[in-house]
Amino acid sequence: MSPNPIVLLSDFGLRDSYVGVMKGVILGFQPKAVIVDLCHELPPQDVDAAAFSLRVSTRYFPKGSLFVCVVDPGVGSRRRIIWARTAGQQFLAPDNGSLGWLKDPVLECRSLENSGLWLPELSATFHGRDIFAPVAGRLAAGLKPERLGPEAADIQDNPFPQPRSDAKGVHGSLLLIDRFGNAVTNLSPSHVASRGMVVFKGRRLPLRHHYTEVQPGEALALIGSSGYLELSIRNGDFGRACKARPGDPVHARD
Amino acid sequence: MSPNPIVLLSDFGLRDSYVGVMKGVILGFQPKAVIVDLCHELPPQDVDAAAFSLRVSTRYFPKGSLFVCVVDPGVGSRRRIIWARTAGQQFLAPDNGSLGWLKDPVLECRSLENSGLWLPELSATFHGRDIFAPVAGRLAAGLKPERLGPEAADIQDNPFPQPRSDAKGVHGSLLLIDRFGNAVTNLSPSHVASRGMVVFKGRRLPLRHHYTEVQPGEALALIGSSGYLELSIRNGDFGRACKARPGDPVHARD
Amino acid sequence: MSPNPIVLLSDFGLRDSYVGVMKGVILGFQPKAVIVDLCHELPPQDVDAAAFSLRVSTRYFPKGSLFVCVVDPGVGSRRRIIWARTAGQQFLAPDNGSLGWLKDPVLECRSLENSGLWLPELSATFHGRDIFAPVAGRLAAGLKPERLGPEAADIQDNPFPQPRSDAKGVHGSLLLIDRFGNAVTNLSPSHVASRGMVVFKGRRLPLRHHYTEVQPGEALALIGSSGYLELSIRNGDFGRACKARPGDPVHARD
Repeated sequence: MSPNPIVLLSDFGLRDSYVGVMKGVILGFQPKAVIVDLCHELPPQDVDAAAFSLRVSTRYFPKGSLFVCVVDPGVGSRRRIIWARTAGQQFLAPDNGSLGWLKDPVLECRSLENSGLWLPELSATFHGRDIFAPVAGRLAAGLKPERLGPEAADIQDNPFPQPRSDAKGVHGSLLLIDRFGNAVTNLSPSHVASRGMVVFKGRRLPLRHHYTEVQPGEALALIGSSGYLELSIRNGDFGRACKARPGDPVHARD
Repeated sequence: MSPNPIVLLSDFGLRDSYVGVMKGVILGFQPKAVIVDLCHELPPQDVDAAAFSLRVSTRYFPKGSLFVCVVDPGVGSRRRIIWARTAGQQFLAPDNGSLGWLKDPVLECRSLENSGLWLPELSATFHGRDIFAPVAGRLAAGLKPERLGPEAADIQDNPFPQPRSDAKGVHGSLLLIDRFGNAVTNLSPSHVASRGMVVFKGRRLPLRHHYTEVQPGEALALIGSSGYLELSIRNGDFGRACKARPGDPVHARD
Repeated sequence: MSPNPIVLLSDFGLRDSYVGVMKGVILGFQPKAVIVDLCHELPPQDVDAAAFSLRVSTRYFPKGSLFVCVVDPGVGSRRRIIWARTAGQQFLAPDNGSLGWLKDPVLECRSLENSGLWLPELSATFHGRDIFAPVAGRLAAGLKPERLGPEAADIQDNPFPQPRSDAKGVHGSLLLIDRFGNAVTNLSPSHVASRGMVVFKGRRLPLRHHYTEVQPGEALALIGSSGYLELSIRNGDFGRACKARPGDPVHARD
């Protein structure tokens, strides 16, 4: 039987050897590990980008998957590292809100304190290698989570940023711009269901179901693959054309 | 026995979680899947770049490999997704010409119409996750291709762009510029065999067998690893130095 | 039992299909191969960058790992390709100094001369695919290293660049700038142990143990995860802010 996947998410990038070294450590503890890269190009230190990636991705991974999420601006400080469990999956992350946007409730949470499970020499800057990777490898090899450390009840809060509504419409913001220049918002289908258009920087975008309902080069808003409203240009780059940035406001109106 | 490799090719990039999520879906259907990334940094919506990558790469993969090629500017439209089989390998791709430059003839082709094999919720923008990945995972788990949908005879034509010859020589064009700045052309060894030089933007390049036949910093033309003529600078970046772009004309002369 | 990992390190980048094709070839010889990417974004033709990555990474990989290191500016020349063995791991690399910075002594070294083990058609530019990959796949499938070629005693020298000391302090240099903008030096803990500060371009940096000992936005020097002194800005990009480049001098003073 194949072990459950270990899914890596980080801001380490692929320019350096950091991700490769984590995999080396994991394989040292579980030679049969099935390691999947979810993404390593999260913006450096952007905890919310990690939280969003987990929010929209975890349900596409098998039951039993272990997500190792290392966006860790507090590395080397006294911030905790936590193991968390939902109904079907497990997570390792710094206790910095990375797990705050998960859709499934966290049922159990532990603070990694059993340093006997870590690499013997701890660096000040790379706990992905020294703590996360050996613990992930050991869990994949059958380690009981109880061994990791004591239960942790008060993990850091980080609520998903909900849009607000008023008489003029629903007001949300951009969460990220993807490789194609699509601008992903925090507006969900229910926010835009009965609305006629979307407004971004004073520009009106038609609300459509498919790219092909507009001409190549035209802008539109549609529900994207994350389940949230996206602003796009068919066969073009909305982010570049409209200088869109995470945090920019977006409005759904009648 | 290890399952045959599933080879992923796309324009999704590695900045986002798209590729990682596809792997999660595949592993849900075939936990033992052997997944290889061929390339995910194809220029967005560049079907010919996908076609060229497949043309020069497939013969280096084992018999039985399944190539999942998702460069899909028509996603969400009524464009078909096809499964195709050559003598030794299988392919999934949108019916947009991505498979048009394969060297091996396509022996069988089916249109993916059995939506019962796809993810239950279909997004408008990410069929890589919702259709290609589950179908690839199921095929790797033993699904018979007959189950995918009916045979498709009239797949989209996309002939490889052949150079033309006249009294002055052979006239081709650049297909891509690689990471090192090498400019890959559509000229094959037979086009340049009896020629003395290559001309690009009025500049004459000597035709050589190895980089080391010129000095570091000097330009040359040689048959590259794709089997096509490449324009290069030894230990340098031809593309940047000569402002080379895909589509630029190149000439082989006596 | 899982085969030992094959660890790939190169300057091929991920923009093209080169790395994917190497994996295809490896899987053709060993379908169960466990292939790990250490890094493929080394600066083009930068042998020392490869040497440093191996120097600081190999000890995090399991015993038995086979490192395939292809930074090969001499490809197509008469430069040798070598197989080398340390106490616990194996290496394939061009004989160009890539293996010169390993911490473990090389116990055995062979020159790859048995061309019957390579792909039948040899390109002039991509021995990663044509020689390294099939040899790696065959080794992973059980090939005895004696079959590769004769012992090679006189491999190319490439000593690690040691800092020099004088009355004013210890004088080293930057080896690389990572994704976060951390500037990694060749100064080891013993070089800075009794020193009070680090000087870079006339700027004094405090020597600290953790990022969190300075305020966000402040510069510091600390022993990084590679075991060498790094210059950083907490939650910032030292390389960009200070225009740091590999080769720049750095000094540790009282």
